[in-house]
Amino acid sequence: MNENGTKITTFKKPKAGSSGKHYAPEELVAGILSNNIAALSKAITLVESTKQEHQAIANRIIESCLSQKKETLRIGITGVPGVGKSTFIEGFGKMLTQMEKKVAVLTVDPTSSKTKGSILGDKTRMQELVQDPNAFIRPSPSGGSLGGVTRKTRESIILLEAAGYDIVIIETVGVGQSETAVHSMVDFFLLLKLSGAGDELQGIKRGIMEMADAVAINKADGENLKAAKLAEVEFRRALQLFPPKENGWIPKVMRCSALQNKGLEPIWDVIEEFVKTSKANGFFERNRQEQNKSWLLQHIEQSLKNDFNRDAKIKKMLPNLEEKVMNGTLSPFNAALQLLAIYRNK
Amino acid sequence: MNENGTKITTFKKPKAGSSGKHYAPEELVAGILSNNIAALSKAITLVESTKQEHQAIANRIIESCLSQKKETLRIGITGVPGVGKSTFIEGFGKMLTQMEKKVAVLTVDPTSSKTKGSILGDKTRMQELVQDPNAFIRPSPSGGSLGGVTRKTRESIILLEAAGYDIVIIETVGVGQSETAVHSMVDFFLLLKLSGAGDELQGIKRGIMEMADAVAINKADGENLKAAKLAEVEFRRALQLFPPKENGWIPKVMRCSALQNKGLEPIWDVIEEFVKTSKANGFFERNRQEQNKSWLLQHIEQSLKNDFNRDAKIKKMLPNLEEKVMNGTLSPFNAALQLLAIYRNK
Repeated sequence: MNENGTKITTFKKPKAGSSGKHYAPEELVAGILSNNIAALSKAITLVESTKQEHQAIANRIIESCLSQKKETLRIGITGVPGVGKSTFIEGFGKMLTQMEKKVAVLTVDPTSSKTKGSILGDKTRMQELVQDPNAFIRPSPSGGSLGGVTRKTRESIILLEAAGYDIVIIETVGVGQSETAVHSMVDFFLLLKLSGAGDELQGIKRGIMEMADAVAINKADGENLKAAKLAEVEFRRALQLFPPKENGWIPKVMRCSALQNKGLEPIWDVIEEFVKTSKANGFFERNRQEQNKSWLLQHIEQSLKNDFNRDAKIKKMLPNLEEKVMNGTLSPFNAALQLLAIYRNK
Repeated sequence: MNENGTKITTFKKPKAGSSGKHYAPEELVAGILSNNIAALSKAITLVESTKQEHQAIANRIIESCLSQKKETLRIGITGVPGVGKSTFIEGFGKMLTQMEKKVAVLTVDPTSSKTKGSILGDKTRMQELVQDPNAFIRPSPSGGSLGGVTRKTRESIILLEAAGYDIVIIETVGVGQSETAVHSMVDFFLLLKLSGAGDELQGIKRGIMEMADAVAINKADGENLKAAKLAEVEFRRALQLFPPKENGWIPKVMRCSALQNKGLEPIWDVIEEFVKTSKANGFFERNRQEQNKSWLLQHIEQSLKNDFNRDAKIKKMLPNLEEKVMNGTLSPFNAALQLLAIYRNK
């Protein structure tokens, strides 16, 4: 817990005058490994920084943290706004900390740079979990593209796991490709749903159903219970139409009421069953390996693109050629050839 | 029409001994502009070639063709296997040629390299359209990634339009991201469906509904007519749940029977209405401009990646670092840094 007695860390930028020494990587690593929240938060801030000097330190920290081999679990949670994600994570997280698990919550929200952290920026969210000494909550990093946000999230996962968090929950809202991004960094992907045709279609249309390892129909309480039971049957039927998953897992459909703290344990049981079977058949490990590989390739791709876009000559030429391409006076392929020729001879 | 009296051009690779002179770009351009099918086919073969010398010629041809400003229409057609795409395109294409339109059909099928052109490789498909002097049918280019196939398709569109084809139909089967790729290169996107719950969900889950400008429920004939009418109502209701399109167009739902040649004219009426309204409000032109711009950026990205992957040092280093990353002994970010440092100092 930091000096304010809260573990919500804001997007504090390192002060202009602060020297690299202030962030001695060895100290921060030592701090992380002893679960010092201030050190962990500082390291995540370095990960999130766009300054090259900070990134260099962050890379050294990540490398040290990576050597810590721990049994961890990464759970992705998604659902449309209003489905009750915060309430769910609050209840689910508290249940896990009561089981002596240490739980961290991260968010992937590419819109947070526009809305200043809409998902978790509001400190009134997850009020109880925030105060739980075995929980750590961090809002989505600000600044930019989904690629940037996911990279920072992936790096933060490594730090959190080194700091002793057994379970990292990654929350996302259904914006653009953010679900796909979160799916690519977790072991288990949970889709929260509401009963009601409109919402069902909203979820299905973005291909999220295919990614889900389980679907939980939330707000299955009070007058809503009957509709939730119907939705449960419908989703189970719908899921049968999908081709079987490569890991052999058959996605489960459940009901819960995060508000009333009902149905959360069965969801955890399903996750445990998933972990058990997918560790037994090797999928768990293979999936993480494949994820690592695709992080590498994505990171290279992003860097190559950044190099190109930052090139002085390209910056000068691109707008002009782009306009010609848009006007149809130059083919996209020829414009690309011209730009690449300039870039290669830099 | 070529020497065999058929316009299906196979994947003939230029012979090893053939010189660049054999493909004089000026001659080919002149041939294309006079709608010489042999010249057009040869030019498309050059576009599809992976040889750098062929690509250089292809680029010159494309540039010349691009200067031909013509009123053209690009229609994307998708649907699951068995929905009757070939029969539909055969009937629809013939209807258009009877209206004095010249029609070209291309396919985007990233699986065709594995299955040797599964979609259109079979010469028995579209037997009547193939023989129509006002139609030109070309199977999916072989060879590789979706990115490669879509690039070749985009370039072929330019050649076909220069050759005087008013309407280019781009067909795809619902594999991976191929619908998104086709959507990114057409003016109008038509989704073919069958009545029946299984198929409906299959279509919806991949987010295709969102892209469709019209949905046509095919095989609405005989015993199937009642179910097709029901599906029509359901789809219309489902489409209402989607947010309105940026061009203000409300997607239409129709029934047809390609086999019985029924309901094809109303589909053409809808397309004409779409073209009229989207030209009036400027969307048609703006959409093509945006497409051109994204072709440029995608092409640059792909080239940067290719450069990297072809680099001798990278080729040597990558497998080793990739393995370390997969094993978890090296972070993806650090591996990327190492590779990029080597690459930048090449």
